[in-house]
Amino acid sequence: MRILFIGDIVGSMGRDQLKTYLPQLKQKYQPQLTIVNGENAAAGKGITEKIYKQFLEWGADYLTMGNHTFDNRDIFDFIDSADKMVRPANFPEGTPGKGIGYVNVNGTEVAIINLQGRTFLPPLEDPFRYADDLVDEAKKRTNVIFVDFHAEATSEKLALAWYLDGRVSAVVGTHTHVQTADNRLLDSGTAYITDVGMTGPYDGIIGTDREAVLKRFLTQLPVRFEATKTGKAQLSGVVIDIDNNTGQAKKIDRILINDDQPFFG
Amino acid sequence: MRILFIGDIVGSMGRDQLKTYLPQLKQKYQPQLTIVNGENAAAGKGITEKIYKQFLEWGADYLTMGNHTFDNRDIFDFIDSADKMVRPANFPEGTPGKGIGYVNVNGTEVAIINLQGRTFLPPLEDPFRYADDLVDEAKKRTNVIFVDFHAEATSEKLALAWYLDGRVSAVVGTHTHVQTADNRLLDSGTAYITDVGMTGPYDGIIGTDREAVLKRFLTQLPVRFEATKTGKAQLSGVVIDIDNNTGQAKKIDRILINDDQPFFG
Amino acid sequence: MRILFIGDIVGSMGRDQLKTYLPQLKQKYQPQLTIVNGENAAAGKGITEKIYKQFLEWGADYLTMGNHTFDNRDIFDFIDSADKMVRPANFPEGTPGKGIGYVNVNGTEVAIINLQGRTFLPPLEDPFRYADDLVDEAKKRTNVIFVDFHAEATSEKLALAWYLDGRVSAVVGTHTHVQTADNRLLDSGTAYITDVGMTGPYDGIIGTDREAVLKRFLTQLPVRFEATKTGKAQLSGVVIDIDNNTGQAKKIDRILINDDQPFFG
Amino acid sequence: MRILFIGDIVGSMGRDQLKTYLPQLKQKYQPQLTIVNGENAAAGKGITEKIYKQFLEWGADYLTMGNHTFDNRDIFDFIDSADKMVRPANFPEGTPGKGIGYVNVNGTEVAIINLQGRTFLPPLEDPFRYADDLVDEAKKRTNVIFVDFHAEATSEKLALAWYLDGRVSAVVGTHTHVQTADNRLLDSGTAYITDVGMTGPYDGIIGTDREAVLKRFLTQLPVRFEATKTGKAQLSGVVIDIDNNTGQAKKIDRILINDDQPFFG
Ligand SMILES: [Fe+2]
Ligand SMILES: [Fe+2]
Ligand SMILES: [Fe+2]
Ligand SMILES: [Fe+2]
Ligand SMILES: [Fe+2]
Ligand SMILES: [Fe+2]
Ligand SMILES: [Fe+2]
Ligand SMILES: [Fe+2]
Repeated sequence: MRILFIGDIVGSMGRDQLKTYLPQLKQKYQPQLTIVNGENAAAGKGITEKIYKQFLEWGADYLTMGNHTFDNRDIFDFIDSADKMVRPANFPEGTPGKGIGYVNVNGTEVAIINLQGRTFLPPLEDPFRYADDLVDEAKKRTNVIFVDFHAEATSEKLALAWYLDGRVSAVVGTHTHVQTADNRLLDSGTAYITDVGMTGPYDGIIGTDREAVLKRFLTQLPVRFEATKTGKAQLSGVVIDIDNNTGQAKKIDRILINDDQPFFG
Repeated sequence: MRILFIGDIVGSMGRDQLKTYLPQLKQKYQPQLTIVNGENAAAGKGITEKIYKQFLEWGADYLTMGNHTFDNRDIFDFIDSADKMVRPANFPEGTPGKGIGYVNVNGTEVAIINLQGRTFLPPLEDPFRYADDLVDEAKKRTNVIFVDFHAEATSEKLALAWYLDGRVSAVVGTHTHVQTADNRLLDSGTAYITDVGMTGPYDGIIGTDREAVLKRFLTQLPVRFEATKTGKAQLSGVVIDIDNNTGQAKKIDRILINDDQPFFG
Repeated sequence: MRILFIGDIVGSMGRDQLKTYLPQLKQKYQPQLTIVNGENAAAGKGITEKIYKQFLEWGADYLTMGNHTFDNRDIFDFIDSADKMVRPANFPEGTPGKGIGYVNVNGTEVAIINLQGRTFLPPLEDPFRYADDLVDEAKKRTNVIFVDFHAEATSEKLALAWYLDGRVSAVVGTHTHVQTADNRLLDSGTAYITDVGMTGPYDGIIGTDREAVLKRFLTQLPVRFEATKTGKAQLSGVVIDIDNNTGQAKKIDRILINDDQPFFG
Repeated sequence: MRILFIGDIVGSMGRDQLKTYLPQLKQKYQPQLTIVNGENAAAGKGITEKIYKQFLEWGADYLTMGNHTFDNRDIFDFIDSADKMVRPANFPEGTPGKGIGYVNVNGTEVAIINLQGRTFLPPLEDPFRYADDLVDEAKKRTNVIFVDFHAEATSEKLALAWYLDGRVSAVVGTHTHVQTADNRLLDSGTAYITDVGMTGPYDGIIGTDREAVLKRFLTQLPVRFEATKTGKAQLSGVVIDIDNNTGQAKKIDRILINDDQPFFG
């Protein structure tokens, strides 16, 4: 099976990119499953029910989230009934939503796991032990297991990927909003990339208004960050081919669409 | 002029990669200037005078450093006489070594600046203000200015690059040890990449022994980190073309050599 | 001369404490100079011009600030004309306000310096070097130099105090909101306390609503913090006696007023 | 029952203080149980079996630890047979040693719990949930429950204390090495102090050699920290009176012995 994963959709520009390119990407790559990270979809911070439903309408099959999951309070009203969404599984017990979900793709079940790192990020539960438990749970139902590891440090992402190598089909990193060039298959068949990158403004600073971020670095004064709303845009993703029986990945390719690298259908 | 930059050389495997491939890379790309980041060259932590001299012998013209500059005490004995090395300029006043250097390339002077970020890293002096001052100083001598910004956070790297856009020829990021796929020319002609990636072990965790790093994440116990010494290796770099008169970059391409992407001469 | 210093005034409860006790404290201790930290005076975050003026009316002679200086936007409208206020001196160049001020106390000039630490706090300019420069500047006018070092880590506070021992009259720490019991004279005559503690709610968590802080620790969800508005209150301060000629401190005593340790006039 | 608790013993000077004063303190305060924090006992970093046994010989009944528990490798050889020692309970599952212990004091059982905070410290397991579980476990055997919460941030310490108020006899903070002046009984009978302070050098920087710490702050260069070995010394502790039946605390007093506040027997 082929999975298309699109990295963090940031604000209105990110949503526009998704709406524009998702049909074309599906046409080109013919994925059986499309997963989208939506943690920045609502003005850069969190997501609303309306956006969640739009993403499904536009062709996404499932959403993953991250450290911004709960930044827009709308989430509390719909996350527990949002069938097609996972948030980092290692939030403390009792957190609304779920960290693992299953979707049936033409008779093959796919487990989708979302985890969050702790290096340079808040102290959630241990992502390594949560990974162990969730993978064990998923293995009872399927070998095809997709992990979005939302984390800052390259070391933590590589560590989790090697830790899960051979046990899951893919570990794709998100959160830094910059696509890395290290997509590869690890020794025992897990597809890996340190960060998929983000989908949204191409000329902001990781999606945020440039002047605001610069002001913060230069003055250390409180600055209100907002997702860039106009200008050039980009889309970042990966396509992963997986053996349905073994769950092993056979290939992971990067997708990057921007003014310097236009899309060819 | 064409500049070849090779990312953080990690330990003996990194040094071997440099020795093996630098001649071939120079053959292929014909750079007029070769710069190498050496902050992890001695067993992952710092550099020795012997290694510094080897790098020059093997074909490097200049070295940049980073947060590990002073981890091997040998540095204190030779940094002040090391003509061909810069360490992050924004270490406090009085720090041995220098943060800006000049090299004459066939009659064109090139300024080489090394700066270090502060997000998730120790509180050095302000890299933005140091950049302003150093660029002003360099501009008196040349328009060709190369900046190695050694930093963790993608936001800080992008912020400095946009801040310097049009004032310097290139801002290349180092430190995360994973190459990013966002090499591009910014609007006013500065070549940029968030991280060049590292040169050394391909199967470690950012160059460090896998078992050790995993033990640390899993147990939170003190663990001694060492550069991986055997196994597959990689090399990461960029090639940048610059207009000698204006100092504007015309192109920045990525180089990645590993078992999955072998080198073709 | 005797200086009375009152630690971080938090919200309306802190302001009420100041209004109630300042006259009584002045009556009891007969200080020649009263300094108040006002960084949390407006609902826990920053200060307004109205509050600044009230503090002066109620008997404060001078205000110091901290990391929350600019959290209430009102500050930008009056800080540059606020004669009797310092904010951390080591904010970047160009920051509104000043980091050192002078006040004439019966013919003796007193320098009041505000600095902020960098451990576990944003990367301002180096407080040690700023201290050197500001103390040199102040020494041209007076030996009586008072420093409010707003910092988190005990090590950084002790380090600056020992660094300045004999050069300034007092280094008092603020920011952790809990009074420490280590008030003392250092070897060369500088009065020191790691933290003066705060003035405001006695039953909150460092001044903030208990339920909100606990929710944050237990759930890691975004929580809006507010200064506790009702219940028991406390006041924290120190009294320092200084030799006007040498600038050396002769004594530093703690003041703590709360339900368990009521004030005796 | 009366419990005497002595804060972090730092290096040889701390051990000397303990040996000298423990008999005198026991003479004066007549505690039924003496607990000592030993995380810095061996040259500032961890503890050895020899020191562990010495502390018991000198009159300590039980030891608590902290973030430095495993810094001296000797610990791995004896912690699992060290009856009288707890280390932070919220280290990951599988960590050698235990986080809760029981000691029988004249027929009354006392539970001793050690926990570590996560703010500005490594991401151990959630101390709040671990506290819930351990207190539930202890409650089956006794109401007299003593908690050493080894943590940096005042907010986290106050939060845990209020969280456990009425469920445990005492929450005493350790780790910052500076005694706080906020010892009190919380509303439902839990004795609390944010930090007991340390036992060791009086003129170092939280126990560490002054020159080394200053060098680090001033230069940002790598510096080897060592516990101060000569000069003035101090001892920090608390005495807590507890109702054996209800487990409620009746009193918590601070002990501070140093050149400025000599011991009176
Ligand atoms: Fe994101
Ligand atoms: Fe994120
Ligand atoms: Fe490096
Ligand atoms: Fe580095
Ligand atoms: Fe404050
Ligand atoms: Fe503060
Ligand atoms: Fe300690
Ligand atoms: Fe500690």
